[in-house]
Amino acid sequence: MKTKWKKVIISTVLLMSTIVLASCGKSSSKDYSTTGSGAGNYQGVIHKGHYRVSKARGVNTGQNSNPYNLKSFESGLTQVSKRVFSTKSYIFQEGQYLDTNTVENWLGRKTKKNPEGLNPAQGKKSNPNPEYVQQIEEQDYMQESGNSMKLKGVTIGIGINSEYNYQKKTDGPNYTKNISNDEVHRQGEIAAQKVLKRLRQNPALKDVPIVIALYKQAPDDSLVGGSFFAYSKNNGDSISSWHDLDYKTAVLPKANGTNNSTTESNQTDNDNFSNFKSQVQNFFPNVSGVTAQAQYDGKSLTGMHITVTTQFYSQTEINSFTQYIARAAKKYLPSGIPIDIKIQSDSQMQSVVYRNNGSDKWQTHIFESY
Amino acid sequence: MKTKWKKVIISTVLLMSTIVLASCGKSSSKDYSTTGSGAGNYQGVIHKGHYRVSKARGVNTGQNSNPYNLKSFESGLTQVSKRVFSTKSYIFQEGQYLDTNTVENWLGRKTKKNPEGLNPAQGKKSNPNPEYVQQIEEQDYMQESGNSMKLKGVTIGIGINSEYNYQKKTDGPNYTKNISNDEVHRQGEIAAQKVLKRLRQNPALKDVPIVIALYKQAPDDSLVGGSFFAYSKNNGDSISSWHDLDYKTAVLPKANGTNNSTTESNQTDNDNFSNFKSQVQNFFPNVSGVTAQAQYDGKSLTGMHITVTTQFYSQTEINSFTQYIARAAKKYLPSGIPIDIKIQSDSQMQSVVYRNNGSDKWQTHIFESY
Repeated sequence: MKTKWKKVIISTVLLMSTIVLASCGKSSSKDYSTTGSGAGNYQGVIHKGHYRVSKARGVNTGQNSNPYNLKSFESGLTQVSKRVFSTKSYIFQEGQYLDTNTVENWLGRKTKKNPEGLNPAQGKKSNPNPEYVQQIEEQDYMQESGNSMKLKGVTIGIGINSEYNYQKKTDGPNYTKNISNDEVHRQGEIAAQKVLKRLRQNPALKDVPIVIALYKQAPDDSLVGGSFFAYSKNNGDSISSWHDLDYKTAVLPKANGTNNSTTESNQTDNDNFSNFKSQVQNFFPNVSGVTAQAQYDGKSLTGMHITVTTQFYSQTEINSFTQYIARAAKKYLPSGIPIDIKIQSDSQMQSVVYRNNGSDKWQTHIFESY
Repeated sequence: MKTKWKKVIISTVLLMSTIVLASCGKSSSKDYSTTGSGAGNYQGVIHKGHYRVSKARGVNTGQNSNPYNLKSFESGLTQVSKRVFSTKSYIFQEGQYLDTNTVENWLGRKTKKNPEGLNPAQGKKSNPNPEYVQQIEEQDYMQESGNSMKLKGVTIGIGINSEYNYQKKTDGPNYTKNISNDEVHRQGEIAAQKVLKRLRQNPALKDVPIVIALYKQAPDDSLVGGSFFAYSKNNGDSISSWHDLDYKTAVLPKANGTNNSTTESNQTDNDNFSNFKSQVQNFFPNVSGVTAQAQYDGKSLTGMHITVTTQFYSQTEINSFTQYIARAAKKYLPSGIPIDIKIQSDSQMQSVVYRNNGSDKWQTHIFESY
């Protein structure tokens, strides 16, 4: 082969490689995709094939002695976000601006070493100041812009304690200070103002709308989490105005004589649930446990999570019980709201009967095994 | 009031009471109802408001060291029954004719004290005869007849061990005897003939069709249960003929190099599942575990139970992961068969994605909390 032709071939090969590499670069330059949409739910951001996890991942899991406060805080925060950022126009991203260190410092008490602590200094050990701020979570709301995702809004949830548990001496008896509703509101608003100001100092967060939502934590022994009571949508660095939220959570059936604000529930709802419960609990010779978490918006029941616990002795018992529960649910439980019924034994879920949000059809699924 | 009128009134009142009482008797004489029907499932018998549980309730739960053998035996027995007793014409009742004592005696070894034991005498302790028969279950199939339910058929499942574990000395090392496929079949047929003859001695079971189904138990360390390999439908007191069943169970992904009959699975199914698995397992920075139980009828995959285990750090992670899995399931998993995907952390189920038998639509449900 002549040298001239060799050169041409080599340059052609080189040119082609460059084109191939360039197009590779282009096709992989769209690094973002989403988890796919579900009815009324946000799509989530996937970056280079991996889910983009929170920069403060896991902080709140260590922050809640009552696991119901953790789950309900996070579900509730998404519920509040939907009021401002439509699931059709925005894509959800786990918080990328508050990292583990920052959130842990903010959740601490204010000391010389930790000037950023949102909770007051301890004061006297025999009569300490309560820790008010219990958890903080950031959610980012994005929109696609060419090949990348652009931040278009942030939601911050702040969980405020309704009681403070402490010991006067290490290993001494436990004491509890109740924190009044007014104080929960006041402390939430104070923390919100500080948080907003600090976020605005980050250039990336200078101009996006920041929603701050305030959550009242349930007591440690509650069988249902707390609820959000206010939110504000802010464009500047001071809180614009608060919108009241009237969410309440309750445990059903209502214990006789309980009548405090966090467990308040409509008498009719409670009666309906009690009818459902008595239909279900004597199905087997052994009694089944039947309890529910309920959520209210104002006086309207907006959803229920029911748990039925019993001892099963065969798969056929599970099948029959599940059918029976599906029938009882249709007959006794309120229509038009999302409800799920977990049917379990030994804390293992055996089947589920549910009606999703926006649907009028009950679904049943039994967990079998080959 | 005249005595005559008094008498008339009294007799009228008595007569009316009799009528009322009689009609009370009548209205409560229909003591039976059912659990309600589900698509392709049997209704179950409810008697006076309570589920009619098995007379041998709970015997099999103590009988299986491997819990997968228990669930798969019971689900599989119902699957076999559906071949003979249509879900449209028959109502399911838990077994009422074999009681706890009887089943426990039958499952024992044959001794002087227990002449009814279906398993051979122990023989030498250093080289014992295997126990072949591991579990027995009765299912009754009923039809409504006026105000009561009438027995129209019985199905008996018999589980035969594929291996026998024993110790030569108490607390000594464990030994295992493998039981060949031929021997499993042979022992199953021997036990079936004895069981059929004994059942026919009960006047209530003299004339109904009795289906006997034989199940090969999976080894104790298997991650999937065994499967049914034959059944017979009998009108007399000796086995008429055996129909082969070609069910097989397998665990996916298939471990490299495994190639025995109980874990045999189609290579394409395994590849599809591996694609699904690699899509899912690197979603989070922490790796997720993805395994499946598969059932085959001959060479056709007939269903899968998939379990995805990972550590979640927030409710939003659960929501995003569930959406992503639903999308991957549509893309990678085979169509036309029932599949469920349990998504769990710390052995607690967080959500489920499934397609039921006969449906072409994937369903998603996330377990939230208030």
